[in-house]
Amino acid sequence: MFEAREGEIALDKDPAAMAPDAGVVFIGRIRSPWTTRADCPRNMAAARAAGRQATIEIAPPYRAGLGGLGGTSHVVVLSWLGRAARNLIIQKPRHAAEPKGVFALRSPARPNPVGLHVAGLVALDAAAGLLTLDAIDVLDGTPVIDLKPYFASIDSFPDAQPPRHGDAP
Amino acid sequence: MFEAREGEIALDKDPAAMAPDAGVVFIGRIRSPWTTRADCPRNMAAARAAGRQATIEIAPPYRAGLGGLGGTSHVVVLSWLGRAARNLIIQKPRHAAEPKGVFALRSPARPNPVGLHVAGLVALDAAAGLLTLDAIDVLDGTPVIDLKPYFASIDSFPDAQPPRHGDAP
Repeated sequence: MFEAREGEIALDKDPAAMAPDAGVVFIGRIRSPWTTRADCPRNMAAARAAGRQATIEIAPPYRAGLGGLGGTSHVVVLSWLGRAARNLIIQKPRHAAEPKGVFALRSPARPNPVGLHVAGLVALDAAAGLLTLDAIDVLDGTPVIDLKPYFASIDSFPDAQPPRHGDAP
Repeated sequence: MFEAREGEIALDKDPAAMAPDAGVVFIGRIRSPWTTRADCPRNMAAARAAGRQATIEIAPPYRAGLGGLGGTSHVVVLSWLGRAARNLIIQKPRHAAEPKGVFALRSPARPNPVGLHVAGLVALDAAAGLLTLDAIDVLDGTPVIDLKPYFASIDSFPDAQPPRHGDAP
């Protein structure tokens, strides 16, 4: 259980302590240049600005699943941010003016700590289970739970409007 | 355990039968017009073409997390597609010419059956835990595990290239 900071509100029942409705398995790990929270970029824009690539290592049983990904320019990475609090339903990020609901934020602290990262795919060695990404905004060693091809036709909305009081990543 | 079809390959160990590395909790449910697999659109483009809206009902404990989402035009919905196989690492979708790795597909059948849907947010009643979406490509009753605001700055890549032998959603 993580303590709420001023302006924050915790759930009565911490999802981390509840009986889960379903289970996830880790299919690989992210290797990133970021080993401390202080170093880790807080979003993908900041990660790109840092100009450091990252790697995903897919575990042996799942490597065959990379077949056919060649030629993809961008992938969706779903990570498991298991070190973050899961009980903070209202949060006040350090950079934000006022507290907000977790579903209006991209904070790693959420009931199910699944991170969503759209990354450029720089190189792919499917046989070795290795993907080189242009950037990533998570700590070294973060587990991966899914990879998906990015399709502009269903995933790209360049004119999308963020929350009215949003903190732009 | 689901049987592989011709050209498909199953994992030796079915993730559905493995000890999970982490657990997810369901935070709500999707109410969609689709009650059978035959009716359900196979991607968000087809769902939009069908011209039917959908609703997400967030469970009471999590409703406060919707505060601050007002004004958002698009949300990322992460669903739990728990009725799909989790062991098919190479798949041959009916519309595809040849088998492909699961990570080159947006198939619901994947080691961790998390669905990713970028939906237009038509209306929001945060107090009642209700979001109206422009469309959705999942069956009625599908659990939701996360909602995130969509930020064009980090999520929109209009020129992204799909897998070379990709099946366009």
